[in-house]
Amino acid sequence: MKFDHNVEIITIGDELLLGQTIDTNAAFLSRELANAGFRVTRRTTVGDNAENIADAVQDALSCSSVVICTGGLGPTQDDFTKPVVAELFDAPLEVDTRLLDALRERYRLRGIAMPERNICQAEVPRGALVLPNPRGTACGLVLRDADGRICILLPGVPHELRGLALEEVIPFLRRARAGTVGGAIRFRTIRTTGIAESAVAEKIDSILPRIRPLTVAFLPQFAGSDLRITSWGELPEAEVDAALSDAEQQIRSVLQSHIYGTGSDDLAAVIGALLRERGLTITTAESCTGGLIAKRITDHAGSSDYFGTGVVTYANEAKQRLLDVSPQTMAEHGAVSEPTVREMIRGAQRRADAAAAIAVTGIAGPGGGSSDKPVGTVWLAAALHDQVLTRKIVFPGDREEIRERAAQAALALLWKLLKDPVPTQVQVAARIA
Amino acid sequence: MKFDHNVEIITIGDELLLGQTIDTNAAFLSRELANAGFRVTRRTTVGDNAENIADAVQDALSCSSVVICTGGLGPTQDDFTKPVVAELFDAPLEVDTRLLDALRERYRLRGIAMPERNICQAEVPRGALVLPNPRGTACGLVLRDADGRICILLPGVPHELRGLALEEVIPFLRRARAGTVGGAIRFRTIRTTGIAESAVAEKIDSILPRIRPLTVAFLPQFAGSDLRITSWGELPEAEVDAALSDAEQQIRSVLQSHIYGTGSDDLAAVIGALLRERGLTITTAESCTGGLIAKRITDHAGSSDYFGTGVVTYANEAKQRLLDVSPQTMAEHGAVSEPTVREMIRGAQRRADAAAAIAVTGIAGPGGGSSDKPVGTVWLAAALHDQVLTRKIVFPGDREEIRERAAQAALALLWKLLKDPVPTQVQVAARIA
Repeated sequence: MKFDHNVEIITIGDELLLGQTIDTNAAFLSRELANAGFRVTRRTTVGDNAENIADAVQDALSCSSVVICTGGLGPTQDDFTKPVVAELFDAPLEVDTRLLDALRERYRLRGIAMPERNICQAEVPRGALVLPNPRGTACGLVLRDADGRICILLPGVPHELRGLALEEVIPFLRRARAGTVGGAIRFRTIRTTGIAESAVAEKIDSILPRIRPLTVAFLPQFAGSDLRITSWGELPEAEVDAALSDAEQQIRSVLQSHIYGTGSDDLAAVIGALLRERGLTITTAESCTGGLIAKRITDHAGSSDYFGTGVVTYANEAKQRLLDVSPQTMAEHGAVSEPTVREMIRGAQRRADAAAAIAVTGIAGPGGGSSDKPVGTVWLAAALHDQVLTRKIVFPGDREEIRERAAQAALALLWKLLKDPVPTQVQVAARIA
Repeated sequence: MKFDHNVEIITIGDELLLGQTIDTNAAFLSRELANAGFRVTRRTTVGDNAENIADAVQDALSCSSVVICTGGLGPTQDDFTKPVVAELFDAPLEVDTRLLDALRERYRLRGIAMPERNICQAEVPRGALVLPNPRGTACGLVLRDADGRICILLPGVPHELRGLALEEVIPFLRRARAGTVGGAIRFRTIRTTGIAESAVAEKIDSILPRIRPLTVAFLPQFAGSDLRITSWGELPEAEVDAALSDAEQQIRSVLQSHIYGTGSDDLAAVIGALLRERGLTITTAESCTGGLIAKRITDHAGSSDYFGTGVVTYANEAKQRLLDVSPQTMAEHGAVSEPTVREMIRGAQRRADAAAAIAVTGIAGPGGGSSDKPVGTVWLAAALHDQVLTRKIVFPGDREEIRERAAQAALALLWKLLKDPVPTQVQVAARIA
């Protein structure tokens, strides 16, 4: 079989089929393979069952020249992947004494005797390439058959898988591909906020025929949509970049003010970069989002450059004590109201001596709603120096979705203020008030 | 084809194969189906490509009597699922005028004219059952062929999918199954913390042969492992509960002090229940976890009963201002040290007047590590009244994993204190100090 850009992924584990674990490994591998120009054509998930694993691997190898399996490489009683694939490739398992020594050493350093069952972790199918895994006891393995088809086995522990994928698998596949022909899949993603998916679709409808053979896909996100422009390999490699750039420019021309980033840019990181660039700091005052916005800001390494303090003021008493919200304001207007969110953000900004701030107060549910303020009602505020923007949104979804959407919308509000700091009517009104 | 308990799931979308979206729908459906006694035998993910969708659906229907597809039901240019499956089932698409009226009404209520492209949202394959979707514009659809094989189409928007699955699909499948024979899959999960997977495996090794035909699977989690005991349908239905209970008791007898819950119990919810039961409140003081612990506590509805305030003190200045940590302590021992985490937790408890508290300070990386305090070094503290437990852990993994593990380990520390409040040597030492 000719080596091409197509890869299939098989993730293995009853915990996946029972829904106890979300398959983040599949998403990670897919993303990294796509970024490296490979095309994942199908993903399959099967349970810890030797027959099902064998069927899935055989089926995948009949369609694709590269199959990556994750999971089922551990030393416990429900791990079948290695013996099953070894048998499919007619490669008997043999103990690799260097791996065994390294395993024993690993345990010795931790001051533990190696459990005997771990010897199987040093077994390697005859002729397989070993991908060293410094993060765990199960190494990666590459098997290749007479037709050149490749099966790669990786452990399912996320940080081990990620390390092996980036350090070993992608470089290995790039080398294996070197010299082969055919256009690689390439794409760009444009991230928008503050505009509905159907409105995006209408705005770009006339652009679609003009950018063929490139396609555009719509990916609804919390409080925004992503647009992915994809070149599927039809164009000559030399023309792909220009075609993608042209398509991106055409889309930007109609959606400009809603585009906050590209690729996997996170809105909290985009805001962080703007703050760092201007030497500004930010603080957060959260009620219904309960720390989620602070978490999103601090998800990013280096966020200590601009983030020093955040408070979660879930109780009314905390809003008074940490943010100086007046009890009278809350009594008159309620904790979920514009006057309260205004006092929250002002208090947060003043207490933390921060140039920028985000405040949120709302009803995440499932309880606590009323006909006047149903579940999902959230007041958001963003502040930059003396400017304040506030917005009320009633979000759909369950508790988790309401919290995620509220966090994203609050970040979007601050982004708008950072991007376009000229006072608008709303801001002028806010100042007068 | 006889209706059995086996279900296949097909998730559709280029965004999944490109790794831009994590497939939470697949996990949700799998979990709910398993909880209802159905067995998901395989999951497949394909892109927005008519041929690949058709192949996947045909292949799945040749193995299973029920296939559930999610995604590709929208009104945009990359949505193919409905026409493809309609063709497979030889059921032409026809506009359902009642659906169309409801769609127009939906737009009217929002004060928007319905975009013409949305008419396709009212098209239904002839003879298909419509599952109403009050949350969005794409309804669910059930197609059934002459052999009784069922294909269910659901939208990919998570909250729409969840609503349809719980309100329509599971009840429909229960009715379809009623009267059929064969044991359903049933399982119980036991959640542990503070013990390594291999240690769990060794402890329960002798139990495994005694509980056959039940099996036990190991699911490593952040700072702990889950154990899933499964009955795969071999036992008579009347014996399953007793067998699961017996297996659970045997496992509990060897792992007792490490078991914090069952099923999908979240450690933050377990702690919340203990606090509510005793009428206690909790506060958080987070540095490297940046709000994640507060978020986890407030993920749970009703958490305002015991959680009022949390602070994120990322900067040293914030640790002084909000928690009264002395500058001298930080200068002498560093911000990541036992003395600092002790002052953080005491300050948090005093300021919030809370009976319980959690404090965390550490280095989440990728920068900021040293040979003395490498990336991953975290000091955790838990307090209950005048008792304080502290612990230093060097966590493996990347920034995200270190933060997740630190949050879980900090919650585990407080859980230990809540469960076993008798002063241990550590606590006595802490009091003396």
